[in-house]
Amino acid sequence: MPEIRRDPVIGRWVIISTERGKRPNEFSTEIEPEMGKFCPFCPGNEDKTPSEILAYGPPERAKNQNGWWVRVVPNKFPALQIEGNINREAQGMYDKMNGIGAHEVLIETPEHKKEIPDLDDKKVEDIIWAIRDRIIDLRKDTRFEYILVFKNKGAAAGASLYHPHSQIMALPMVPIRAKQEILGAKQYFDFKERCVFCDMITQELSQNIRIVAENEQFVAFEPFAARFPFETWIIPKVHDSHFEDIQKSEASQFAKMFKNILHRIRVVLDDPPFNFILHNSPLKDPSLPHFHWYMEITPKLSKIAGFEWGTGFYINPTPPEEAAQFLKEAE
Amino acid sequence: MPEIRRDPVIGRWVIISTERGKRPNEFSTEIEPEMGKFCPFCPGNEDKTPSEILAYGPPERAKNQNGWWVRVVPNKFPALQIEGNINREAQGMYDKMNGIGAHEVLIETPEHKKEIPDLDDKKVEDIIWAIRDRIIDLRKDTRFEYILVFKNKGAAAGASLYHPHSQIMALPMVPIRAKQEILGAKQYFDFKERCVFCDMITQELSQNIRIVAENEQFVAFEPFAARFPFETWIIPKVHDSHFEDIQKSEASQFAKMFKNILHRIRVVLDDPPFNFILHNSPLKDPSLPHFHWYMEITPKLSKIAGFEWGTGFYINPTPPEEAAQFLKEAE
Repeated sequence: MPEIRRDPVIGRWVIISTERGKRPNEFSTEIEPEMGKFCPFCPGNEDKTPSEILAYGPPERAKNQNGWWVRVVPNKFPALQIEGNINREAQGMYDKMNGIGAHEVLIETPEHKKEIPDLDDKKVEDIIWAIRDRIIDLRKDTRFEYILVFKNKGAAAGASLYHPHSQIMALPMVPIRAKQEILGAKQYFDFKERCVFCDMITQELSQNIRIVAENEQFVAFEPFAARFPFETWIIPKVHDSHFEDIQKSEASQFAKMFKNILHRIRVVLDDPPFNFILHNSPLKDPSLPHFHWYMEITPKLSKIAGFEWGTGFYINPTPPEEAAQFLKEAE
Repeated sequence: MPEIRRDPVIGRWVIISTERGKRPNEFSTEIEPEMGKFCPFCPGNEDKTPSEILAYGPPERAKNQNGWWVRVVPNKFPALQIEGNINREAQGMYDKMNGIGAHEVLIETPEHKKEIPDLDDKKVEDIIWAIRDRIIDLRKDTRFEYILVFKNKGAAAGASLYHPHSQIMALPMVPIRAKQEILGAKQYFDFKERCVFCDMITQELSQNIRIVAENEQFVAFEPFAARFPFETWIIPKVHDSHFEDIQKSEASQFAKMFKNILHRIRVVLDDPPFNFILHNSPLKDPSLPHFHWYMEITPKLSKIAGFEWGTGFYINPTPPEEAAQFLKEAE
């Protein structure tokens, strides 16, 4: 059973693999995800993954068979274990709990070499619905406090398999970054009685120097204090704290915008490795007037050095205004 | 002039290069620091760096000449600019200031291929004194609030030059990570009326499962909630919030311990890329009963993926207890 341990100073939780750790010589090589070889996520290999949790496909399709267009399966090498009790306990002054949680893989398409920008709008929308359906289902498990949805694309961004997929993790605590973000937004709200994200949207739309794209319900921009070159946010224009409450019309517009932005990033940066992360509210929070969900996309272009690690203080060599210009002009 | 911008939600400051940003095609290749070619930090090339700020060497040596054993020079490509006013101002709802600060390079040894574990104890001690002397000098400039001392070793850890060096940055604000760490320590102190780091030292010494090495005045251990495999801390046994207040006898023992630990990491992990970061108190804080300075060393072994970025929530595949064992047994 993995352990989740709390840093006693900053309150950060860390998953520690306690079974058999990686030994010193097991870190040496970084393997580029292989292409063309056997792929457990390709159609026909459904029996090579744990049994599916959810799949969208034609009604006649049987479970764990070919024919799906989106498929969610348990991660074969999960960082957390689904069965068991959380069992919070002390170890002297330290705090830990069992590494309980869900760790799922969302296979975005049956096609090994197609990414989101290559899919039909409807298929991208189905990815959005699959994320939403999994959040709705996982939040029924009262052991969980937060759900992380993210993608690692490319070896440099942490991917170990090539086939397009994202990941869903249900955690028994709210991670520190989410906590801090929501606290910061709360402090702004307490002071101004307005949502800080709504204010950002208003200012971005009026300044119009960091906007990349806009449709009726979503806007994509480079944040004012972007940590990374070409860091991009997609955010709903109308206030909403919970992604899973997305309206049907919004899901369709979000899918279009997501595809649009990922396409621009691919064109401008020559298909870079990237991560996306859904910033969402904790599962047990009611609708929050101060928090606003959004999708953060960060191409992995520059290396993060000691400076950034030690401080949470970043050096961004590309002003967001210039990055927005490049992305806006991309075809 | 670079700009320092504040993220309006979380309060994180980011340095944005506003002169001429890196364009999309300028990120493509990651260059391994060259060896054997021209090195601006090697003796004889003193005129290839900006004029030195500090150097230790024989009394007869002239400034910017050969013969030094530790040398501090301004960074030729500084992230911050030393001249100017900070000029805090708003941009609508956003906050920014001029990118004022110091960015210096500490050349640890004249020898291109010798790292700290290869140097005489006395020479390592001089590195410690050079760091201390620079902090003392920089804190006289009242524009500065915090000094970062760190090292990037190896390309994967962010180094761009091979010759052994570390970096010193004086910042016009306290970075968020330092702020959070000190706040967390303060909360513990308010609750327990004891320093959280002193408590950790006591528990680590009594449990003795994460200790790597110990001498009269310092202890090195793997933290309970280590984010990274083989993350190691070196901390003074006697409470002290400010590194620059180090006693003479402590400097000598710290140098020995630093060399010892870097040697063990090199042996066990086959000369890995790594970062070290000095966790220290803000310049304008008096002696703090709740904060305790320490040196954090993190080998760069595993890639950090989207999961870690988005959440500040880490997965560490090597339990610190096992890492401690490997390091302890190293010769």
